[in-house]
Amino acid sequence: MGINLINFLSSKSKNKRMNEFQDLDHIEGVSVSTVNANLYENSRDDLVMFYFREGANYASLYTQSKIVSENLKWNLSNKPKKIFTLLVNTRNANCFTGKQGYKSLENIAETLSTALTEKQKVDEDQPRKIKSKEVIFGCTGTIGEIFPEEKIKDKIPELIDKIKYTQNKYIWMKAALGIMTTDTQPKMAMEECLIGNSRIKIFGIAKGSGMIQPDMATTLGYIFTDADLPNDVLKKLLKKNITSTFNAITCDSDTSTNDMLTIFSTGKAKHLKVKNVNDERLKEFDQALNKVLLNLAKRIVSDGEGATKFVTIKVENCKTEEDAKKIAFSIANSPLVKTAISGEDPNWGRIIMAIGKAGIQMKIDKLSIKFGDLFIIQGGKLSANYTEEKASDYMKSDNIEINIEIGNGSKNFTAYTMDLTEKYIEINSDYRS
Amino acid sequence: MGINLINFLSSKSKNKRMNEFQDLDHIEGVSVSTVNANLYENSRDDLVMFYFREGANYASLYTQSKIVSENLKWNLSNKPKKIFTLLVNTRNANCFTGKQGYKSLENIAETLSTALTEKQKVDEDQPRKIKSKEVIFGCTGTIGEIFPEEKIKDKIPELIDKIKYTQNKYIWMKAALGIMTTDTQPKMAMEECLIGNSRIKIFGIAKGSGMIQPDMATTLGYIFTDADLPNDVLKKLLKKNITSTFNAITCDSDTSTNDMLTIFSTGKAKHLKVKNVNDERLKEFDQALNKVLLNLAKRIVSDGEGATKFVTIKVENCKTEEDAKKIAFSIANSPLVKTAISGEDPNWGRIIMAIGKAGIQMKIDKLSIKFGDLFIIQGGKLSANYTEEKASDYMKSDNIEINIEIGNGSKNFTAYTMDLTEKYIEINSDYRS
Repeated sequence: MGINLINFLSSKSKNKRMNEFQDLDHIEGVSVSTVNANLYENSRDDLVMFYFREGANYASLYTQSKIVSENLKWNLSNKPKKIFTLLVNTRNANCFTGKQGYKSLENIAETLSTALTEKQKVDEDQPRKIKSKEVIFGCTGTIGEIFPEEKIKDKIPELIDKIKYTQNKYIWMKAALGIMTTDTQPKMAMEECLIGNSRIKIFGIAKGSGMIQPDMATTLGYIFTDADLPNDVLKKLLKKNITSTFNAITCDSDTSTNDMLTIFSTGKAKHLKVKNVNDERLKEFDQALNKVLLNLAKRIVSDGEGATKFVTIKVENCKTEEDAKKIAFSIANSPLVKTAISGEDPNWGRIIMAIGKAGIQMKIDKLSIKFGDLFIIQGGKLSANYTEEKASDYMKSDNIEINIEIGNGSKNFTAYTMDLTEKYIEINSDYRS
Repeated sequence: MGINLINFLSSKSKNKRMNEFQDLDHIEGVSVSTVNANLYENSRDDLVMFYFREGANYASLYTQSKIVSENLKWNLSNKPKKIFTLLVNTRNANCFTGKQGYKSLENIAETLSTALTEKQKVDEDQPRKIKSKEVIFGCTGTIGEIFPEEKIKDKIPELIDKIKYTQNKYIWMKAALGIMTTDTQPKMAMEECLIGNSRIKIFGIAKGSGMIQPDMATTLGYIFTDADLPNDVLKKLLKKNITSTFNAITCDSDTSTNDMLTIFSTGKAKHLKVKNVNDERLKEFDQALNKVLLNLAKRIVSDGEGATKFVTIKVENCKTEEDAKKIAFSIANSPLVKTAISGEDPNWGRIIMAIGKAGIQMKIDKLSIKFGDLFIIQGGKLSANYTEEKASDYMKSDNIEINIEIGNGSKNFTAYTMDLTEKYIEINSDYRS
């Protein structure tokens, strides 16, 4: 897999299913380094370090899978007040690698924290001793292969050499490319907002293309802000906003052992202390964070393995949000719905099938289905205005919206997915070869 | 789609994933007629009638989908003591066809029962008046298209002309072919057993290739026996034996609106009355019925859309059967596991992923995974004997067995599925075109 930075910078809008991404520039308190540690045995960057010279408050959400990777075990068992560095490698998930996998992380954290302590002595007025538990890890790639400890450790000096305290769009792009596996597009998003009178930045990068039905977390998503927020507020904000964003997407119904979503708050933008998640001053930040998360989540689906269509499934007026979510995911995960979409076939019978198998009680005569604004089913019957021709025309779009009205309540859920193509099979039957 | 009877009769063992099927011959009390009603607008038979001249006791299980087809509504709302005929059409599922779909069935049942009453007058010593509610329907095909009432009614005289009271292997083969949709192979099975001293036959035919994760029923499965068993005993036998057979298979995790499994008992083999499902004399019949159902269920998976491999997933020593079933289906429905199998890639990391996402608490150090007899994971670690080469070799087989040992209890479940190939996508993105 050859990933060419220049290619992406010069043809950003190649993917018609998504808008161009915004350029991420500088965010105070974060430094990004990327290197090629030869994990893929080619020339791409595959190891990315985010360094917080004064530390960062943080909060993480992890996979709900009952089998979790060694790096998540590490992250879960160390609970420092601040994080000084996040190290992300691709190619190897460090899952089912047992003691060797965990021990490797201990060794890398030890080497990295020692080297960063030396760096502090050179660069900082008030140098700190960075502890190994102040390092967290993101790993993604194949499960069950020996974790490449030496290759990673060998690159620590180069990662540290590359630390720069002013960031630009190129380094963020390199970071977003550096954490990719089967992704074909980097995923970046940014928003600005106010907390009180202070202008705040929220940057995000993510990766993910297959094994994606996040469950309380995602594949890899990292959010960086210069806001000054305590860990518990960050955690509440993340939990609150994940439901409608990362937990609303599915590519293939498969949940990774390595899902990780972390927000880092460097506190460099000075504003009045916010101690409570309900603080009025957080309103804009809350909305902006949701936008960043949703933007990244949509990019993941849009770049889902083999995707040719971006699909939004809105389920409205259910008894409970849980009902709406079950129906939305039943449609979003149905191979028969997804293949019909890839074939541009307005086969609404399969949507009926998927609604039925979700197991939610409903009155058929309340059911409506629209493709975009086009009524297919109205009041439980084929719409009088329905023509196969109009419906077929609609299916040619790169963005498909399926709108379902259940009509026995007032709760809604929107899920995002993509179509299922032969390319998905090709990618996943050849992944390791 | 051209289906050639002679092709199948002359090359029955083409599908290496399954044994040859047995020839079904005569079963007393059942008459089979097949015709071409032009539902597919080609020359294949697409309408099949099973006629029980003296009626048959029966029991049915239907889909658990919350949206069910009109024919299932008909079958559920008429509860005669005996059934005189089962009429099965393909091409049209008669689902989401509303009042027209139901009314059509009323009309067809009326015409058919009247014609059969005339037939009784000619053929029987004690002719009966057959009522329209003594007709049941199986429908399979596309959802939401107008039900072709006239085409079907027009063929009733021809169906009745073709009634013969002695069956042979050709007519059963024609019936099995006549109920197919995207199937590439007919599905038939038979067993013989004793009830007391009477030799009993159990014949079965089924169809199904996609939209298959039956839930308390299957796509279409019809069982015929000359045993003389009351309806409630038939129902209990069916429920008891479906868990490990039709409800243990999945092709694509999608559940049909039309799933229907019915057993008919003509009572022509005379034996002592059996009034209770626990009667010792039913033991052999019970086992033989399980064999017929399992045989048909496996044939459905083996002919799953685009299948190149038949996959058996045994999950053993769980706390509950429900846990074992969740894990087995989590693996069986994982697109990433299924594509790895189609690529002959022993990517056991994806099996780990699928076990993890099933959400069952377990101790990793008790976990074992075998491919056939080949240990992959032993006691939560990569087996000392594991080599990628041996594992890769194993994956070349047409029949893949994945054996999982959870080790926190004594309950087991076995699921059956097939691999996921580009052919599945091709079939399902082009289905209606």
